[in-house]
Amino acid sequence: MAQKAQVLYDFTAEPGNNELTVKEGETITITNPNIGGGWIEAQNSRGEIGLVPEDYIELNKSFPSFPAAAPAAPAPSVGNVAAPDLSFFDAYAPASTPAQNQASNGNDPWSVWNADPSGGSSNNWASNPEGTQTGKSAAPDPWASVSHGHPQAYQGPGADDDEWDDEWDDVKSTGGYAESETGEGGAMQRGGAHATSMKIALNKFPGFSKSGPELYLLCKQLAKGKDRLPIYMGEVGPVWFYPETQLDCVVADPKKGSKMYGLKSYIEYQITPNTTNRPVNHRYKHFDWLYERLLDKFGSAIPIPSLPDKQVTGRFEEEFIKMRMERLQGWMTRMCRHPVVSNSEVFQLFLSYKDEKDWKTGKRKAEKDETVGVMIFSTIEPEASDLDPVEVEQKCEQFSRFTKAMDDGVKEILTVGHEHWKRCTGPLPKEYQRIGKAFQNLSSVFTSSGYQGESTLTDALTAAGKTYEEIAQLVAEQPRKDLHFLMETNNEYKGLLGCFPDTIGVHKAAIDKVKEGDKLVATSKITPQEKVTMAKRLSTMSYALQAEMNHFHSNRIYDYNRVMQLYLEEQVKFYETIAEKLRQAHSQFTTM
Amino acid sequence: MAQKAQVLYDFTAEPGNNELTVKEGETITITNPNIGGGWIEAQNSRGEIGLVPEDYIELNKSFPSFPAAAPAAPAPSVGNVAAPDLSFFDAYAPASTPAQNQASNGNDPWSVWNADPSGGSSNNWASNPEGTQTGKSAAPDPWASVSHGHPQAYQGPGADDDEWDDEWDDVKSTGGYAESETGEGGAMQRGGAHATSMKIALNKFPGFSKSGPELYLLCKQLAKGKDRLPIYMGEVGPVWFYPETQLDCVVADPKKGSKMYGLKSYIEYQITPNTTNRPVNHRYKHFDWLYERLLDKFGSAIPIPSLPDKQVTGRFEEEFIKMRMERLQGWMTRMCRHPVVSNSEVFQLFLSYKDEKDWKTGKRKAEKDETVGVMIFSTIEPEASDLDPVEVEQKCEQFSRFTKAMDDGVKEILTVGHEHWKRCTGPLPKEYQRIGKAFQNLSSVFTSSGYQGESTLTDALTAAGKTYEEIAQLVAEQPRKDLHFLMETNNEYKGLLGCFPDTIGVHKAAIDKVKEGDKLVATSKITPQEKVTMAKRLSTMSYALQAEMNHFHSNRIYDYNRVMQLYLEEQVKFYETIAEKLRQAHSQFTTM
Repeated sequence: MAQKAQVLYDFTAEPGNNELTVKEGETITITNPNIGGGWIEAQNSRGEIGLVPEDYIELNKSFPSFPAAAPAAPAPSVGNVAAPDLSFFDAYAPASTPAQNQASNGNDPWSVWNADPSGGSSNNWASNPEGTQTGKSAAPDPWASVSHGHPQAYQGPGADDDEWDDEWDDVKSTGGYAESETGEGGAMQRGGAHATSMKIALNKFPGFSKSGPELYLLCKQLAKGKDRLPIYMGEVGPVWFYPETQLDCVVADPKKGSKMYGLKSYIEYQITPNTTNRPVNHRYKHFDWLYERLLDKFGSAIPIPSLPDKQVTGRFEEEFIKMRMERLQGWMTRMCRHPVVSNSEVFQLFLSYKDEKDWKTGKRKAEKDETVGVMIFSTIEPEASDLDPVEVEQKCEQFSRFTKAMDDGVKEILTVGHEHWKRCTGPLPKEYQRIGKAFQNLSSVFTSSGYQGESTLTDALTAAGKTYEEIAQLVAEQPRKDLHFLMETNNEYKGLLGCFPDTIGVHKAAIDKVKEGDKLVATSKITPQEKVTMAKRLSTMSYALQAEMNHFHSNRIYDYNRVMQLYLEEQVKFYETIAEKLRQAHSQFTTM
Repeated sequence: MAQKAQVLYDFTAEPGNNELTVKEGETITITNPNIGGGWIEAQNSRGEIGLVPEDYIELNKSFPSFPAAAPAAPAPSVGNVAAPDLSFFDAYAPASTPAQNQASNGNDPWSVWNADPSGGSSNNWASNPEGTQTGKSAAPDPWASVSHGHPQAYQGPGADDDEWDDEWDDVKSTGGYAESETGEGGAMQRGGAHATSMKIALNKFPGFSKSGPELYLLCKQLAKGKDRLPIYMGEVGPVWFYPETQLDCVVADPKKGSKMYGLKSYIEYQITPNTTNRPVNHRYKHFDWLYERLLDKFGSAIPIPSLPDKQVTGRFEEEFIKMRMERLQGWMTRMCRHPVVSNSEVFQLFLSYKDEKDWKTGKRKAEKDETVGVMIFSTIEPEASDLDPVEVEQKCEQFSRFTKAMDDGVKEILTVGHEHWKRCTGPLPKEYQRIGKAFQNLSSVFTSSGYQGESTLTDALTAAGKTYEEIAQLVAEQPRKDLHFLMETNNEYKGLLGCFPDTIGVHKAAIDKVKEGDKLVATSKITPQEKVTMAKRLSTMSYALQAEMNHFHSNRIYDYNRVMQLYLEEQVKFYETIAEKLRQAHSQFTTM
């Protein structure tokens, strides 16, 4: 689909740069939005094609292939990895992008707190599963549960992303998901499995079918002795059990595989955990399968950020693959850092299955797991004594205020960072180039003076001019060296924070239910004993939420210290390099 | 007159900053173009008034009170003087400003070489004095001879500047030039004097009334023995006689004087030459009288740059006076540096008259001086042997090519510098401010987490945020510390270069006349002897032109080395300061 854009102000092409001269108010057609470096390729009404600075134009809102940023991102620990040359026009779309506008009405993860409950339910599978189910069963899109269930991913309209992803997940693919449906427990089956687990989750209590937590609050018996999730009291309050050595893994060595006599090809990544040190291979869709499992199993208690995918766009396939890998690494690193997730059977299976048979068996088992949704709380065992429901509610309110506030703060940084990125790769270097050219032109005029003893000045002027051209290049390249990682980290947190409304929503619902306790007893919907049980289990849920928040906080403090160090370190180098270049240029001028 | 402007893109006012929110495409009315710092004050259709970044808007072309830059400027030697806070929106208008557009058609100093001679004559008093006379007698504007005769000043339509200058030259003046006309040989009389001298210059040779140089080429006898201007052969070729010690002076201590029982007030500056070390007082109009005298006397041989005036605009009277003084200092310094001008009787009178009587007598004498226009060549005595007319023409062509080329180069720097000035004082600091705010906002969100051991990060984040706010301020203030002087020097050269078409025009006319030599003899317009004399005198004119070019070159090489040193020195300091601030911010982050 061709995208039209309005020209905001005049731009005159420099000869020989493949640029296109455009006039303010002119309408042009984007022929390639992914040039990168602050440029897009466009065609004017006369059919001429050329490059135009992307912030000289305004895109017609409703562009499917300009999705806003999605959460998962490489942890700052990959700071030393050079960022691939991608178009961040897509990656770091500001708050005003179509996708986010959409998010802000109805799809806003925070609208779960809206007066109108449907506003929230439409994007919170925990609070309105059936709605989502219907939506899903209607859509053959295997990602539907993701894009609807996790709006923070801000993925554009499903259909477009679908084709897009299709193309990329199975390179040169023609058969869509036919293969995954039949072949190896693929998308549709996953969708099915998900649907099933949810139906189980809700149909037991038709009376409360509009809400999730009762399933746990009122279930007759808790899960069996295996997979206990203890919660200890640490210095900072309730904390998960953290293993001695932290799990970690390396995602590397993407290989193009093919099947059906080469008719269909795909990318396979090699994942090596620090535990076994034995690499296993996975395709992107296996990562997605893992994501679905983790979401089903832990989503009510632990924010599971969406996988990186649709927002990743590269000029070339290699770049796309490199960027996706970098972000898959970031996602895996975060999952490894989580004591509960990293220790789970399904995650361990993904990282260290022995052979194809082992993998297949493990997959089927994981898909049959019934300790999903709110039932995860049935495995949690706090060591501390029960909390009073009032205290629970206060904690919950505090967490929701904080996560909402941080979400705003993170989005502000992303918006400002995006604008800064565009200026640094667009008009600013162009200006330094023009300054450099102006000095060099004057120098060559002086050379033509025919006056003696001119050369010292003309050489110095030329050198000064070249220096400003070098500065132009430094300015244009800098964002990839520092801003990139600041943006990636904040994108990752935007994704994480987008999960909290779901998690907190479950708690709010549970709190409300416990509040209705007496009424429910009076109308004999529940027994007095069940009312006591509900309060006790709400306390357990609260310990889980607090442990999760404490995990979030400690990671947040580490991540932001890390990324700010990296950012400022690179910024210092940047300004020092420029100062040094200018010092050299200065030394060439002499006043006799 | 109210100026309309188009809003180029959306700008959202920051509360409490007296800013005005505007939408792209909206039309606003400029209520004050001279706010400075990249801002203008405007009113929207709803009558709201506030500040808008000047490069967010596009001015409706044909704005009288946005004149482009004029020549005179402080030499870089005043680099240590802090630049006053002026609106450089006026001072450094780019090539595309109305004034210069106007200049480029008809008023272009270079159009003297146009195929259409009238194009040239309209702005070159030497080649079409009568035209100018008529123009002048029609216009009561005392500056007419300046603004028409010296288009490089690019002063907007006379009428507006007139009122404007009127207001400024005589503060709270009501009577326009009534006083100066009667009082003390003021504007109109000067205009008269000028007209007279020109009439003398031309009516003697009705046959050649369209051109000037014949007056000298064919005059019966050269001026008497006094005021000889010898030309020596130096290493670089023909050179003026340079005095042992260079004349210099300090323009300082502007005082408001008043007359007519305080009804009329004016500014008086104190000028102290290094020769007598005795200060003399002069009003702006005395400087202008001196300019007129120098122009009449030396204009055919030596480029006499216009005085700084109409292009100087300040937000406050003090600023205006300070800026005008700085530029008068620059103009005087340049005149003092010129061996011929500084040594002239009229210039010495201006600098060192003993008393009012001495001044009045000297003025009358100077106004009666008949060695003006092309007759200045009659005082020039080259020591070297006569040049062949072919060589003369080659030299002349070379100079005109060079001065034209340098004029283009200088204007390019002014245009680019102006754009850079606007970016550095407009959008760029705003962006660094937003980055700083974003960090600080995130910091205050973190503070609200209620998590332990948060403070190190939040303090560091706040410090980083404040650092970017400081950087914003550094960026906005930097142009006054370096770009200002680069712009001033180039403005000064733009003015000087604008004088060359007049000077070179006289030579071209003389060359043509000598070429017609045989024809003139044949048609007995001149005698064979006069033909020989013409060739000899053409050689003298050429020596004068070469001496002047060599003077120009040596000054140019000094000035550009000087200003580039100053510019790069400040730029280095600027980037080092930022690097140091960021290094401090970096040191506050810690990854445990």
